[in-house]
Amino acid sequence: MEQFFLDTPKEGFIDITLLVGEIVLNGHVRRGICQVFVPHTTAGVTINENADPDVAADMQLALEQMVPDLPYQHVEGNSPAHLKSSLIGCSVTLPVIDHSLVLGTWQAIYFCEFDGPRRRKVWVQVIGV
Amino acid sequence: MEQFFLDTPKEGFIDITLLVGEIVLNGHVRRGICQVFVPHTTAGVTINENADPDVAADMQLALEQMVPDLPYQHVEGNSPAHLKSSLIGCSVTLPVIDHSLVLGTWQAIYFCEFDGPRRRKVWVQVIGV
Amino acid sequence: MEQFFLDTPKEGFIDITLLVGEIVLNGHVRRGICQVFVPHTTAGVTINENADPDVAADMQLALEQMVPDLPYQHVEGNSPAHLKSSLIGCSVTLPVIDHSLVLGTWQAIYFCEFDGPRRRKVWVQVIGV
Repeated sequence: MEQFFLDTPKEGFIDITLLVGEIVLNGHVRRGICQVFVPHTTAGVTINENADPDVAADMQLALEQMVPDLPYQHVEGNSPAHLKSSLIGCSVTLPVIDHSLVLGTWQAIYFCEFDGPRRRKVWVQVIGV
Repeated sequence: MEQFFLDTPKEGFIDITLLVGEIVLNGHVRRGICQVFVPHTTAGVTINENADPDVAADMQLALEQMVPDLPYQHVEGNSPAHLKSSLIGCSVTLPVIDHSLVLGTWQAIYFCEFDGPRRRKVWVQVIGV
Repeated sequence: MEQFFLDTPKEGFIDITLLVGEIVLNGHVRRGICQVFVPHTTAGVTINENADPDVAADMQLALEQMVPDLPYQHVEGNSPAHLKSSLIGCSVTLPVIDHSLVLGTWQAIYFCEFDGPRRRKVWVQVIGV
């Protein structure tokens, strides 16, 4: 399993497609599945539009409004970030063909920070033949 | 990796269980994991109830209400569809046993269109032994 | 594929990390991916904080408020539980290294009951080498 680090802003979606793609290229698997796993509970990983950065900004804005402002019990005060992590998910799996990540034309892989700034880890594992 | 096409309505959940199951049956993997991957950023794929079509309709209605109506910046005007894609997810993985997809009694695989009508692709990859 | 059963409350997040970890330890795969699959349509599985139980309680509260109260058509009256299942997801995949599940420091695997109490099943499949 490979690992890389990210220094994140307070909140934000960071395009990690190239970092993941490089690991897949340098690995031993020709055909299989690539798993991108975020080992944190107030961050996530998703696949979405790679062209217009307004899309990621709009998604953050909408998520912010969707998760209600309630008298949460968790003392750290970051319960909305925990819920966002579970809504978006902390892992994605992608097809690998000919040692390359396969994505749709408009897709990129985004690390989603919901409670930064922090130093974060991303784990990448490729399995197959 | 196999691929099939769907012609979608404006919005809707399309049951693709049989299409995916056929690919698994005709493949070389006896035991493993099937990945269904949607290479689009305003559509998704989910697993939910196969019996009463009202469930899928209710889910679309609730999603529509949940995603807020905001002054989004993305000029295409489909930011809610992008967020729905990331909330539902663009891939699912399912167990494969004896060359067959394994699902719960009431489960079906649905392609989720959030910004149609369009011609869409679905990628299916099966890995294992 | 291995299977275990849970007797669930009306609603709640049940930590199943040890149960899944034991299956991985006793399996034949040294390095690969573990899939946890919930074969139900009003329950889910997610990865989130393992330390403060208030986090899971806060997440349930927020989800409850987020899913709107609408005139749903599905006669069983549990459409919100179906939507929560698709928002959270019915499967997670985790890295396996040296016959062990690999998780972040603060991560646990939770079975999410949205429409109990019921007797539920969890399927665990480990693939790799």
